[in-house]
This record gives sequence, structure tokens and C-alpha cells, in this order.
Amino acid sequence: TDIKKLTYSNRGMTLEEDINASNQYYLVQGLAVIHKKPTPVQIVSVDYPKRSAAVIKEAYFKQQSTTDYNGVYRGKYVDFEAKETQNKTSFPLHNFHEHQINHMKAVYKQNGICFILLRFSITDEVFFLEAQHLFSYWDEQSKGGRKSIPKKYIEERGYPISISLNPRIDYLKVIDCIYFNL
Amino acid sequence: TDIKKLTYSNRGMTLEEDINASNQYYLVQGLAVIHKKPTPVQIVSVDYPKRSAAVIKEAYFKQQSTTDYNGVYRGKYVDFEAKETQNKTSFPLHNFHEHQINHMKAVYKQNGICFILLRFSITDEVFFLEAQHLFSYWDEQSKGGRKSIPKKYIEERGYPISISLNPRIDYLKVIDCIYFNL
Ligand SMILES: [Mg+2]
Ligand SMILES: [Mg+2]
Repeated sequence: TDIKKLTYSNRGMTLEEDINASNQYYLVQGLAVIHKKPTPVQIVSVDYPKRSAAVIKEAYFKQQSTTDYNGVYRGKYVDFEAKETQNKTSFPLHNFHEHQINHMKAVYKQNGICFILLRFSITDEVFFLEAQHLFSYWDEQSKGGRKSIPKKYIEERGYPISISLNPRIDYLKVIDCIYFNL
Repeated sequence: TDIKKLTYSNRGMTLEEDINASNQYYLVQGLAVIHKKPTPVQIVSVDYPKRSAAVIKEAYFKQQSTTDYNGVYRGKYVDFEAKETQNKTSFPLHNFHEHQINHMKAVYKQNGICFILLRFSITDEVFFLEAQHLFSYWDEQSKGGRKSIPKKYIEERGYPISISLNPRIDYLKVIDCIYFNL
């Protein structure tokens, strides 16, 4: 039998699905408690039919005022955002929003573990990059700097995460290494 | 001029509004980063009108699989649920759901700071109670134990929080005392 290499293309999984599955694995194993936040919705009108559940009849998607993922690992606060790009040589900063950056800066000041998970879809590579690297590119951008983080920089300063079966994206391993010296 | 005592009745504020305002104060002051999670919604149908935002046409409220509030304080993970009761002598356990308890137990095992904020509406009193006290009443309940936590117990083992102007409910002060010996 032929064991295929695990790639996003042949698995048909999004980065978000992989992270959710990894978080579920961590939770069941008692390793960490990390969840994706619900998508925020602005509710405009709700029907309350008799004898059945309330139905939302008009609502709009709102932008998350924080990052999508947070939780606890070994007592420490963990907070991150996950993004994918079709680009090959750099990660465009337009994938991030001002309020997400502000949130991550606030978390960083509070000594939370804060990072981004970046996926280059074409080559099917995932990197763990500490938030402070994102901050410096973000802040430079407004002073006329470049609008993306070079892949070369991400390879040098970030940590590659190879895709496995369970957990699919083992980002706790990187946290162990950087923050707990394990 | 007459300075009125700050009470929920004359302020017309819910516990949730007071906590959100306190979190906003902590955030602006750079003291902590703690947010209420968005209400989870199961989206069934969405319209995509030309040239305007997507409209959710049918959706249902889902139960939060975690607690409502979490975030970071001095690097530590903070997680809590807030509940009000009209009862005078005890806090009914039916205010909590199995999945919330399971979530809090998982957080507790991960060494997160985990508690509940309880408000007795009639007497306008707010208490901070560490989650492990809730666990013992919850677990006893299924073995035929009582269906509520006596107020006397909450007064003895919990910490009263007096309502102030800013922050309205200063629960970080209790965290400082219990977890940081400050
Ligand atoms: Mg996102
Ligand atoms: Mg709630």
C-alpha cells in the first residue's frame, strides 16, 4: 500500500480545520484548553415563535475585535491568529487588521504567549512566528516600509511546523521550546 | 448635594454591563486584557446582495461551550463566568451548564485562574468565588446533594466585591490577593 505524504492539497483541509482538530486533541488529552472564538454577529431582528426556538431573521457579520484563538497552557495565557496566503515569497500584511495588532500588542505587554500561525498554501508550509516580529513589520509599514513579511525572514526567525496526524499542527511543541525551555 | 449610594437598582446596570465596563477600564489602563466572548450563533442561511454586506437571514442561538469571559493578567490565564440570582439565601446551580463546568474543570487542571462572579440582585451584592467551590457543590448535586450553594457558604469562602465608579467591579483586586499575594 502507498502511504501518501500529508499535504493540505490532498487532505483538503483548511488551516482553521487543522487548528481546531489540534485544539480538540489537546483538550481531550488534558494538555491545553484552547478554543476558537465564535464569529461575532450583529443581530438586528429576532422572531420568537411559540413553542420553538428564537429565530434570528436579520444579522450581519462583525469583525472580531481580538484574535481568533486563545486559551491556557501550563497556567500561561496563549493567544494567536492563523492566516493563509497564496503568495510564494512573502506574507502580505493586509491579512491582518489594526485592531488585531492592537490586541496582540496588549497581550504581549501583559506577558501572554502571543504568536501567529502562517501557512503558505502553494508549498503547504506552516510557520509559528512570535507576535513581536509581526509588530515590527506592521509599524514599519506605516512609515513607508514594505507591505509584507519576506518568507526568508519567516524562515529565519519563525519555527516551521510539520503536519502530522494527531495533533495535525503541534504548535505546543514550539511553545514548550520557546517559553518553557523544554 | 446628595451622593446616592451606588446600587444596581438605581444605576439600572446589569452585572454583564458592569463587567464589560470594568474590562474596558482594565484594557485602557494597560492592567489586563479580558474580553467577553461573542454569543455563538448557528448560521443557516445567508444572502449576498450585490454591492452590499452579506445578510444573515436565518440563524439560531447556540450555547457557549466555554465560559463567557477570558483573557490575560500578569501573564496568567484568567477565565470566569458571571451569574445573577433573585434568590436571597442561596445561589441555584441551574444557572450553570454541564459544559461550562467541564470547561472550568479543564482550565483549573491547566492552572488557569478560574472563578465565578455571583450577584444577589435583591441585596445588590457581588461575590468572587473560586471555581473549585462550585465544582464540589456541582459534583455533590448529582449524588443527591443540594441544588444550590448556600449564601452563608459564599460569604465564608468567597470574596465580596463592592461596587465602585471605575472599575465598577474590581475583581483584579481579589486576584491580586489570592493568586499573587499582593
Ligand atoms: Mg481569523
Ligand atoms: Mg453567561
